[in-house]
Amino acid sequence: MKNIILLIMDGLGDRPNVELGNKTALQAADRPNLNRLASNGTTGLMSPVSFGIRAGSDTSHLSILGYDPLKYYTGRGPFEALGLGIELKPGDVAFRANYATVKGGKVIDRRAGRVHGTDVLSADLETEIDGIRFIVKSGVEHRAAVVMRGYNLSDKITETDPHTVNSPPEYTRALEPEAEFTATVINKFLDRSRKILQDHEFNRKLNSDGKLPANEIMLRGAGKIPAIPPFQEKYSMRAACISGTPLIRGIAGLAGFTNLKVEGMNGRVDTNYKNIISAAVKALDTYDFILVNIKGTDIAGHDRKPELKKSVIEQVDSVIAPFLERLDDTLIVVTGDHSTPCSYGDHTGDPVPVMFATNGIINDDVRYFDELSVSSGYYKITSNDIMPIIMSYSDRAVKYGA
Amino acid sequence: MKNIILLIMDGLGDRPNVELGNKTALQAADRPNLNRLASNGTTGLMSPVSFGIRAGSDTSHLSILGYDPLKYYTGRGPFEALGLGIELKPGDVAFRANYATVKGGKVIDRRAGRVHGTDVLSADLETEIDGIRFIVKSGVEHRAAVVMRGYNLSDKITETDPHTVNSPPEYTRALEPEAEFTATVINKFLDRSRKILQDHEFNRKLNSDGKLPANEIMLRGAGKIPAIPPFQEKYSMRAACISGTPLIRGIAGLAGFTNLKVEGMNGRVDTNYKNIISAAVKALDTYDFILVNIKGTDIAGHDRKPELKKSVIEQVDSVIAPFLERLDDTLIVVTGDHSTPCSYGDHTGDPVPVMFATNGIINDDVRYFDELSVSSGYYKITSNDIMPIIMSYSDRAVKYGA
Repeated sequence: MKNIILLIMDGLGDRPNVELGNKTALQAADRPNLNRLASNGTTGLMSPVSFGIRAGSDTSHLSILGYDPLKYYTGRGPFEALGLGIELKPGDVAFRANYATVKGGKVIDRRAGRVHGTDVLSADLETEIDGIRFIVKSGVEHRAAVVMRGYNLSDKITETDPHTVNSPPEYTRALEPEAEFTATVINKFLDRSRKILQDHEFNRKLNSDGKLPANEIMLRGAGKIPAIPPFQEKYSMRAACISGTPLIRGIAGLAGFTNLKVEGMNGRVDTNYKNIISAAVKALDTYDFILVNIKGTDIAGHDRKPELKKSVIEQVDSVIAPFLERLDDTLIVVTGDHSTPCSYGDHTGDPVPVMFATNGIINDDVRYFDELSVSSGYYKITSNDIMPIIMSYSDRAVKYGA
Repeated sequence: MKNIILLIMDGLGDRPNVELGNKTALQAADRPNLNRLASNGTTGLMSPVSFGIRAGSDTSHLSILGYDPLKYYTGRGPFEALGLGIELKPGDVAFRANYATVKGGKVIDRRAGRVHGTDVLSADLETEIDGIRFIVKSGVEHRAAVVMRGYNLSDKITETDPHTVNSPPEYTRALEPEAEFTATVINKFLDRSRKILQDHEFNRKLNSDGKLPANEIMLRGAGKIPAIPPFQEKYSMRAACISGTPLIRGIAGLAGFTNLKVEGMNGRVDTNYKNIISAAVKALDTYDFILVNIKGTDIAGHDRKPELKKSVIEQVDSVIAPFLERLDDTLIVVTGDHSTPCSYGDHTGDPVPVMFATNGIINDDVRYFDELSVSSGYYKITSNDIMPIIMSYSDRAVKYGA
């Protein structure tokens, strides 16, 4: 039986970049260690969730870890909340939220001019109503998450976002009798929030600067966290996660992973790559399965910066030599959770390179780790196939039949 | 329309063997005819059941023949019984059984010291109780199968194997009211069996040799045979099976195949390869679809003997030249039902080479039949895809749509 390190470079897949001589970031990167790993195992292309699907990091990580997102992805609300670092508990109802601008009783901008710095608003909206605690946390620009915590909550309620301008902001309605209490409490929360936001110093400042005030918080994507079977029971492995990204830590936490702390680790491009990889190798002493997520590749893709994406890959490559020393007792799996091509600036459904490196298994003829090279490799799979292949190559799979 | 020979070399897939210069058995084998076939069609990698799954021969053969094992694999009991050559009938309830050692009312060894030669015990346990016939057959070491035949039987009963030592052997209990009769009859069978085993000469001999007696038979994995739609109706083909392995013959029988007899054929490595292939070609006169299973590759894999596995492949190769003469009117399909790497000694989830050889279809660039060569071929499929591709290449498929 071998232990496993699953290294996910977030948004790794790319498209040709003019700035890189029409190469993808991976093709352009100096990556001797990734290439050595590719030479020590089987490779292929992996389509996150399924072929052509533009997966999010949430749905793809669920799928990669063996949790069918069609079953376990319970909507944007809970996963947005996880992404903002809110630790969700069973029974919580979570929403994605937008700060918006209301004037004359109508929504005139659903994003409040893409307002920045709403943390002060979110802090003041937190409250408790009828025994239900409201947790509010700001995200990027106008985005936020709202979590309701308490008894008897239902996510079967309508959204308060009219999804169009020049309509009044809405109250929520229960979609089933059991949701009446939840709807009533939310509407009290909305009344209270509107009052606070209207008079808030932060908004007075925006008004006086000639900017749109964030005087409405609109809720949508209500959902509860899924009841995920613990990874440890599903696969009989002690599992740890190394990631500086709240969403990934949140998903790993849901699945029962231990989230490890690493000095200098963050979810940005200036994270401490060396410490992350050292921590992963060290964790092999205690855990059977270590998920490592490095976010920089995705950030560079969203920011349309091919040189930066290349640089992140090179920084990762420069620190993973220790993996090559562990191929006797460890299965090293490297892939992305989706493609974030710099030329597109967002996720696409393009397949992502994947490799399974360990001693003793077949080495396909692929000697370079990039989109095109691995396309002549062993596998053309979806993310749902990752865990079964990991279980087989690590000699941990249970036989199906005799 | 073409006829089909589907040659399954059991456990064909392999991993690099130090003894063979880090080649797989297929790579190392002298295999001119397999290579000629590969040059006359399309090739690829096939993952049994699905990617990474460690399929048994039962689940993989079901899947290859177009029967989804998730639907038709009804557990280890009936398939163990088929594997021991018991012809199951609809309504039979079959169990896997262990001979075990009980001392002082408690199970002290669940495998009775991996006892050999229990056939005499099994023969004496066969009986009829309340109109229900009990068929008992010994397998390898402590293993056996027990089949109940009669009316009103249910497989919704608990196991009698405590699955741990130092616990008393159990009686069975009904899990639904309809199973009360079955449970009662099984418990009478257990009482009778315990009495017979306790005083049996075979066990007295074991005792006097200082060995553990096989004085308990524990039942588990109860199941009925699946109701499989006949192959002949599903595919409009007359089908025959050529195999010396009871499990394969049993599955083929379930699907309505005619099991052909071949002189000198057995399920071992010293089977008569030439007669098997001659019989397959001759069967083309009478049948549209001929399944041939050769077990030697799997046996060599389980026994961790790469030279033997290579030799079995070479013996098969040396007799299949007649296939090359039939490519005008026949589709020759060669694959394995799973990988049994000699370095691992058991099934793994590694993909298996597959080829579809016939005249008139595209020849991919693959000229060698082995794991690595076919990985640059036409297909990366699972076993569920085999029958549809066979139907298409043999000009037998029904159009889906217009």
